[in-house]
Amino acid sequence: MKDENCIFCKLANGDIPTATLYEDDDFRVILDAAPASKGHALILPKEHYADLYELSDELAAKVLVLAKKMITELAPKLKCSGYNIVQNNGESAGQTVFHFHLHMIPRYDGEEKILTWKPGTLSDEVKNELIK
Amino acid sequence: MKDENCIFCKLANGDIPTATLYEDDDFRVILDAAPASKGHALILPKEHYADLYELSDELAAKVLVLAKKMITELAPKLKCSGYNIVQNNGESAGQTVFHFHLHMIPRYDGEEKILTWKPGTLSDEVKNELIK
Repeated sequence: MKDENCIFCKLANGDIPTATLYEDDDFRVILDAAPASKGHALILPKEHYADLYELSDELAAKVLVLAKKMITELAPKLKCSGYNIVQNNGESAGQTVFHFHLHMIPRYDGEEKILTWKPGTLSDEVKNELIK
Repeated sequence: MKDENCIFCKLANGDIPTATLYEDDDFRVILDAAPASKGHALILPKEHYADLYELSDELAAKVLVLAKKMITELAPKLKCSGYNIVQNNGESAGQTVFHFHLHMIPRYDGEEKILTWKPGTLSDEVKNELIK
């Protein structure tokens, strides 16, 4: 199902022209219009799913296989030295468009990191809470 | 194949005890020992693959289905409001252990973002270079 008010539905289905790197029955891979780095691309399912919680298992099984194929093809063209694969769910995670999308962000030596966190410590309390 | 010198091979295969949330024939899901947030977990394949480039398509097809299952179970327990799914390839992408792993990082309202980038612009030059 498509959502008429969703910009990524329109992009994924070609209703708005976009810089397309790849397309099949399920997905369109496009260049991000506001890239974090040269070659930053997005995998968009053509059907509307808000996030990973909603995405069907059938499509979820295809996303990372497609990401592997894309970065394997793109890395030598871009001459990047790394790739961040990022998929955000929820506003607090930085998701801004509520149509599932997977970021493939090429990384180049000497660039500033886009992902940083202070390493915490794993407490027994959390372990006991989550592991029965 | 396991790599004798790889710490994540040892963790994934239970050679070193670890805080395990889930295990099947292919994967172990563990709590990160240096979490970015409460409940930060990792999906590790039991076989050794350095990164997404190396991961078999067969396993790649299972990773995101498992991530969906895990965050669906964990989010209500953790009462988090979002999830960053992150998988780094290469030193320039922040990868520090060269055994494929997928981060599932719960996000809570009011916490500082761990993922930030300055939105760039997509040039015609890059489009022309990548799209034939």
